Amino acid sequence: MTRKETFNFSSGPSVLPAEALERAGAEICNFGSSGMSVMEMSHRSPIYEGIFAEVKTKLKKALSVPDSHEILFLQGGASMQFSMIPMNLMGEKGCADYAVTGNFSDTAYKEAKKYGTVNLAASSEDKNHTYIPAQNEITTDPNASYFYYCANNTIYGTQWKYVPETGAVPIACDMSSEILSKPVDIKKYGVIFAGAQKNMAPAGLTVVIIDKALAGRELPFTPLMMSYGLMIEKDSMFNTPPCWNIYILGLVLDWLESRGGVIGMEKETVEKAKMVYDVLDESRLFNACAEPGARSNMNITFRTKSREIDAAFVKEAEARGLLNLKGHRSVGGMRASVYNAQPIEGILALAEYMRDFEVKNRV
Amino acid sequence: MTRKETFNFSSGPSVLPAEALERAGAEICNFGSSGMSVMEMSHRSPIYEGIFAEVKTKLKKALSVPDSHEILFLQGGASMQFSMIPMNLMGEKGCADYAVTGNFSDTAYKEAKKYGTVNLAASSEDKNHTYIPAQNEITTDPNASYFYYCANNTIYGTQWKYVPETGAVPIACDMSSEILSKPVDIKKYGVIFAGAQKNMAPAGLTVVIIDKALAGRELPFTPLMMSYGLMIEKDSMFNTPPCWNIYILGLVLDWLESRGGVIGMEKETVEKAKMVYDVLDESRLFNACAEPGARSNMNITFRTKSREIDAAFVKEAEARGLLNLKGHRSVGGMRASVYNAQPIEGILALAEYMRDFEVKNRV
Repeated sequence: MTRKETFNFSSGPSVLPAEALERAGAEICNFGSSGMSVMEMSHRSPIYEGIFAEVKTKLKKALSVPDSHEILFLQGGASMQFSMIPMNLMGEKGCADYAVTGNFSDTAYKEAKKYGTVNLAASSEDKNHTYIPAQNEITTDPNASYFYYCANNTIYGTQWKYVPETGAVPIACDMSSEILSKPVDIKKYGVIFAGAQKNMAPAGLTVVIIDKALAGRELPFTPLMMSYGLMIEKDSMFNTPPCWNIYILGLVLDWLESRGGVIGMEKETVEKAKMVYDVLDESRLFNACAEPGARSNMNITFRTKSREIDAAFVKEAEARGLLNLKGHRSVGGMRASVYNAQPIEGILALAEYMRDFEVKNRV
Repeated sequence: MTRKETFNFSSGPSVLPAEALERAGAEICNFGSSGMSVMEMSHRSPIYEGIFAEVKTKLKKALSVPDSHEILFLQGGASMQFSMIPMNLMGEKGCADYAVTGNFSDTAYKEAKKYGTVNLAASSEDKNHTYIPAQNEITTDPNASYFYYCANNTIYGTQWKYVPETGAVPIACDMSSEILSKPVDIKKYGVIFAGAQKNMAPAGLTVVIIDKALAGRELPFTPLMMSYGLMIEKDSMFNTPPCWNIYILGLVLDWLESRGGVIGMEKETVEKAKMVYDVLDESRLFNACAEPGARSNMNITFRTKSREIDAAFVKEAEARGLLNLKGHRSVGGMRASVYNAQPIEGILALAEYMRDFEVKNRV
């Protein structure tokens, strides 16, 4: 089966732009006239420093990052940020607000308790995380050091459609599964972070965008590598960064720009997601899991009334080259992740298959 | 300049086997019949779980890791281990012994002070880290939770030629720049760790080999991602691991096995290093920096009596395709890193150039 005959709906690591992979393949043994792979370059060499600076500039441009904020290229995934955020931001006040709208924000909420007092500012657990709390359902503490939420819930297929109003309290946001899919007003956030393996680059890179004014307040036992202040001071190079992953991010950003940047992506994303949700809304077999106002444009979760039919759907999909449509083990059903690099052909193939499958499995 | 015309002497990230890079390039867009790049695979998919398990098995075999020890694939580099080791091993005793023989062990020593009482068990600072303390120069505390040292000092070009005797005190060892270059008696160690970017894989992967009996004693504020116990329990997959780096490690291990494994590597390594040290010993222009008994087989540090001549040596080397021979900024001079993947042709070219350069710069 050639690459073109398959579409990968994995929730992450997930599909990357074919153009980026082809370019990486063409120069994998010898980048430019260097005689070296990017994987072999000293991170302190002028050639790699050039790549690094260029990727940072491209990301700054793509997301319109203001000069008040610094871009960091770190490791450890979003899970490392679950600890790094409280260790750095809990500060003197020693308390923080958390909105729990899924598995990952729940893990972050529990982890933060190691480092201070944590308020459950909002939760969607009462309806199994199928919705996003409205502003008036959030109880914020004006004395909190920060307010934390996860913008897109990969497992449950829900997405915040607004930025919570928190007054003077800085916002920390996990954007792992929606970053670069739409414009973001970075100034509204104290810290944004994202594991790269959904919309940016291969797993092993974590992008952090932090208001520099928030750095330098880490707790005394904070590990060196987990100090935002040190990472800002060293431009993410206190030690060797994940050089290859950063390079691939650059190739992905070139592709992104060629498609109109985050504005182009938002248009494509909304269209792509709508095509699948339209099938779900017309269907008598499939049901979307998320409430209409909270539907994610990145991860579309759905199911039939029967586990057996769900399993058959996933199995037949694989045979048609529609890969990784099984829902997360904690919720079951199906999940189609339609990140930036998911081509429209993949969406068309999925929609067609869903309609075909429904005809064959009339209820 | 084609790849074959250059030799990369970088101290890390550093040269990788050409065969491994070529294989990676051939399957970068489509691994096997998957229709996906390894960079796009869900870490929970059977195909990637297969790759992961196979790499672990290969590494276990290459280093003869006993069943008492677990192999972990982590992130954050050796610097993350500087914190992770005391956070996990300091335990009830609350004190540890450190041997400081260079920049990285010094950073580790200072970092450990955040988490307990730290004894300076040995130091080579009195002679600018040009030697390795002998066993009788090490003051160990039988009540220490662990004894820490760095086996090969990349910056200073020194290498421990013996494993310190510490009685019942477990040994924690930074093997970043010598792992896989010779056999190791793993049972002698409590924890071995190594950043991958010297002898294993691209930067962004840290290999830890830990005696399972030492896990589960972490301090209460230890971040989730820094608990050895949790990482063992989750087989390094609490969250998404650096999938691509692990895959490349597998390709490097295949190459390693084809060259006789670590026994073959040790033979090659000793020969390669000797060729350069022989030139140094015969030279009236160049001097080796490390004392004879402490000379590293991985990083060969040397200098002339003049900074100008050093600079000229490095500059002319670049023109000949001998790259990254400049010494670390903290010590100056030159450094030739001759890791596993440095081909013998690179050593021959370096030795020839050194002799040529000496003829032209007679003192």
